Amino acid sequence: MDDRVREHADVLVDWSARIEPGDEVVVCVAEGAHELGVAVAEKLGEVGANVVTTYDSAEVSRAYQRAHDGDFEADPDHALALYEAADAVLRLGGGRNTTALADVPSGTRRAHARARTGIREARMATDWVSTVHPTRSLAQQAGMAYEAYREFVYNAVLRDWEALAGKMAHMKEILDEGSEVRLVKERDDQPDTDLTMSIGDRTAVNSAASVAYDSHNLPSGEVFTAPYDTAGEVFFDVPMTIDSRRVRDVRMVFEDGEVVDFEAERGADEIESVLATDDGARRLGELGVGMNRGIDRVTDNVLFDEKMGDTVHLALGRAYDSTIPYGETGNQSAVHVDLITDVSEAARLEVDGEVVQRDGAFRFEEGFEG
Amino acid sequence: MDDRVREHADVLVDWSARIEPGDEVVVCVAEGAHELGVAVAEKLGEVGANVVTTYDSAEVSRAYQRAHDGDFEADPDHALALYEAADAVLRLGGGRNTTALADVPSGTRRAHARARTGIREARMATDWVSTVHPTRSLAQQAGMAYEAYREFVYNAVLRDWEALAGKMAHMKEILDEGSEVRLVKERDDQPDTDLTMSIGDRTAVNSAASVAYDSHNLPSGEVFTAPYDTAGEVFFDVPMTIDSRRVRDVRMVFEDGEVVDFEAERGADEIESVLATDDGARRLGELGVGMNRGIDRVTDNVLFDEKMGDTVHLALGRAYDSTIPYGETGNQSAVHVDLITDVSEAARLEVDGEVVQRDGAFRFEEGFEG
Repeated sequence: MDDRVREHADVLVDWSARIEPGDEVVVCVAEGAHELGVAVAEKLGEVGANVVTTYDSAEVSRAYQRAHDGDFEADPDHALALYEAADAVLRLGGGRNTTALADVPSGTRRAHARARTGIREARMATDWVSTVHPTRSLAQQAGMAYEAYREFVYNAVLRDWEALAGKMAHMKEILDEGSEVRLVKERDDQPDTDLTMSIGDRTAVNSAASVAYDSHNLPSGEVFTAPYDTAGEVFFDVPMTIDSRRVRDVRMVFEDGEVVDFEAERGADEIESVLATDDGARRLGELGVGMNRGIDRVTDNVLFDEKMGDTVHLALGRAYDSTIPYGETGNQSAVHVDLITDVSEAARLEVDGEVVQRDGAFRFEEGFEG
Repeated sequence: MDDRVREHADVLVDWSARIEPGDEVVVCVAEGAHELGVAVAEKLGEVGANVVTTYDSAEVSRAYQRAHDGDFEADPDHALALYEAADAVLRLGGGRNTTALADVPSGTRRAHARARTGIREARMATDWVSTVHPTRSLAQQAGMAYEAYREFVYNAVLRDWEALAGKMAHMKEILDEGSEVRLVKERDDQPDTDLTMSIGDRTAVNSAASVAYDSHNLPSGEVFTAPYDTAGEVFFDVPMTIDSRRVRDVRMVFEDGEVVDFEAERGADEIESVLATDDGARRLGELGVGMNRGIDRVTDNVLFDEKMGDTVHLALGRAYDSTIPYGETGNQSAVHVDLITDVSEAARLEVDGEVVQRDGAFRFEEGFEG
């Protein structure tokens, strides 16, 4: 086994999920994640945790959902019992075909997901962490050779997380203390971006790939908060896949916190359908600043893309509770759709009028030119 | 997908486990059993059952057990909760390497199994069924080509179970009413067999591959009971693997129900170690009559071998409760080791002095010559 697979397991178990002896751990292994499953089991054995391994097969799910009449029973007892008794859930993604569920009617998929709301909540009440094992299918999705993709994934995952968390703490502090964010980008080859958002009273999350930081993705490496009263225009130049459809070069105009106009080089119908979901889908639920410089290219996988260094992302829809003052509610919506913009050149991020990031470099980094 | 995989799933879900709408089903998928897992999920979706799929990977188990200090926690809550809430457990065997656990110390394996006693009991309190998906690894174990092995497995599994159950009912009736069984074999090429066993008061099980028949293996196709007061000698000419070691041509002598002497062409040490386990290991826990004529050759897999038509098997060790009168206990032991003898020629099985099977043919079949 490649040493990096074991290192990945070590980071996941120790840094991300903080597993302790005697913890009841559910490990969910995707079809292509066997090798990481073995490494994680070895690590959990070493720690002395207790393990149930589930098989997260997209093909098994497809077969079940397509054959079912669609009237799914809510939160089956045995599944609920498993997750309610779990201390941690480690989800090892990495399928063999990213479009394995393409012919499951979306209504069926939604009904199945809805029927598992209680199970999802039980899972999210644990120290859960999602990661991915590099598979050929994901390499293909990224348009990369397998070996190069493995390099890419381990470069993103095997960071000095403690050091990155320290750096991200600066960004969190700036956002926590700030009231207004302005994102400006003036490149000759694309429409201008000039967007302002309020962030007063909101709490930023230092998403350092660990439950200790309220962060549940490995890799992570972003600081995010929940903006409101958004106004201006923004151009998202990083291509995305939303609900299996490609979306690219989206220009969006906001007034009084809501999307009032948009155009897209590709995937306009998809954006239209997202915006039509509910009222909250026209408002932002997240402003995220990508700070993982181990992620240096787009791979058509939001788990990686939104963490990419030198990018900023905004999500239409639901805000995360952790960013909202206790007792209040953030933007509500059935969707949370991330859109990303490259800020590596001719771009700046300001907080309360002060430049925090220019052309990718942060104020608290060497090489920053305010 | 090969139609036979779907037919296998149909037999498993409908005939064997009798799954009904709303049942909470755990499907345990071995490393090589993905395809059957998909077919079973499809079938369970059709029926409207609820599914949790676990990953029964030998390599995951090996990694966990080897890394652990061996002081396993008894019956982890989350695993116990899953099985206690389950109505049925479908175990889809079929690994990629039958010796994947070869370097886990046997003490560790035993400690791990012991620590899961409660979980095993919870599982066995459900409508559980074990079956196997034909894999290249199992074909290799059987010394067969893959395609030929698939033929073999489906021939064993895709029977007219209702008809076989009817035929086996005759055998059960004979054993239920009988007091003494005598097995005689006189072949020139091997030591004679002449063994008598008491079966008075014991109940035979018509093992027709269905929970409705108290039978939990697919394929099945045997009628078994729990003998006592065994006396005489028997020659087991069907090769077996016991705890990863090959055993062949075992001659065993019984007096007053206990093994008093034995010799083996191969694997004598292994037999010795089985007999030394505890007092019960020297007595028989099972007399089984193989009646599945779809199984026409030895494949070094006891799930199949002991069901083979024209064979009789005896197990050293633990008796199954279902064969023992209510309130009494059968032979107790930590082991249950099956040994098989070919009765296709120069052999007869008598019950209370009447020939029931001669050279493989049963009294209730055409072609039987008493």
